[in-house]
Amino acid sequence: MAIDDARGLLIVFSGPSGCGKGTIMERLLAARDDTMLSVSVTTRAPRPGDVDGVQYFFRTHEQVEQMIREDALLEYAQYNGNYYGTPRAAVEEQLAAGRNVILEIEVQGALKVMSRVADYVSIFLLPPSMEELERRLRGRGTETEESVQNRLAAACEEVAQADKYQYLVRNDEVDAAVQRISTIIDAEKMRCDRSKYILEDLNYAEPH
Amino acid sequence: MAIDDARGLLIVFSGPSGCGKGTIMERLLAARDDTMLSVSVTTRAPRPGDVDGVQYFFRTHEQVEQMIREDALLEYAQYNGNYYGTPRAAVEEQLAAGRNVILEIEVQGALKVMSRVADYVSIFLLPPSMEELERRLRGRGTETEESVQNRLAAACEEVAQADKYQYLVRNDEVDAAVQRISTIIDAEKMRCDRSKYILEDLNYAEPH
Repeated sequence: MAIDDARGLLIVFSGPSGCGKGTIMERLLAARDDTMLSVSVTTRAPRPGDVDGVQYFFRTHEQVEQMIREDALLEYAQYNGNYYGTPRAAVEEQLAAGRNVILEIEVQGALKVMSRVADYVSIFLLPPSMEELERRLRGRGTETEESVQNRLAAACEEVAQADKYQYLVRNDEVDAAVQRISTIIDAEKMRCDRSKYILEDLNYAEPH
Repeated sequence: MAIDDARGLLIVFSGPSGCGKGTIMERLLAARDDTMLSVSVTTRAPRPGDVDGVQYFFRTHEQVEQMIREDALLEYAQYNGNYYGTPRAAVEEQLAAGRNVILEIEVQGALKVMSRVADYVSIFLLPPSMEELERRLRGRGTETEESVQNRLAAACEEVAQADKYQYLVRNDEVDAAVQRISTIIDAEKMRCDRSKYILEDLNYAEPH
């Protein structure tokens, strides 16, 4: 078995709103062609420019509810009356092809996935400080004070669950944070239970 | 608490004779000033150039046997009538100072350490192939056929236990292997249970 045949990693990736997940993911995916973002299923209507299977898999309420009944979603949630979920088969297909699949997902969904999947890597992205996070949330300048306070409180609740993840990565500097995540991926690939093919390749004589 | 105050990693490092452990360690230590080799205790006599506390801590049989009785050695073994062991206090002192300490150690001692220590990282170094390992053992040209066969059999017995380590690293190319070990160290430092100080630094308000 060649190294290219090794299975990909399922990476559960969370962090509070405003901590820079989007930028980090963009740079990470640009840097690693062995890694991709999972595409979610949604019932919300496509917007101009949306392509089915790229931003989302666009499905009807009936279709998504059938997927839920058939346990075809690793996790799902409802926002504003629409379903959003992670399709198990699409993820599995990429993992089997050796690609690392990142689920960028809020904490509740992440915990659900971790409880249902045997093998994953979980990473929580942290802002350099809560003051900096507040600055970033205000920096958008588009929100009321009440909305900023609500988002900050939500961020604190998410950060309070960071210790349920395997790895903590601080986003003090974008390039450094991207490098740290890449380092975690490279190391996890060398874990014994994921790299036994190296032993098989060795072809040594088992001692009797 | 600053990142520099974080505790070092205890790294248990093994691999069969002839797989290149010595060269890899030399390069790794040259590349990382946060990482050092553990110094063993021994009862063998110092050779010309040996400095106490550098190559080994040189002690008498009585002193080492007292350390054993006082559980002051993480592991020990006897070869040719001499004791060789890993002094717990010296290792602990370096870990507490934030330095990563590598125990380059054969499999039996490694398994003993893993069973006695709560927090460690274990890495097994593999040759590119058993044929290459045989070539390297023969390459020394100083040994009889019988001795080569004995060493090969011993290597196979060690490799058969590689799956008791957390990470497998193939030494197909020295620089790449050194980089892989360094990657493992960097990633393990980001494990949540070892980087909680980042959460403490954040100073966020716990949700009630």
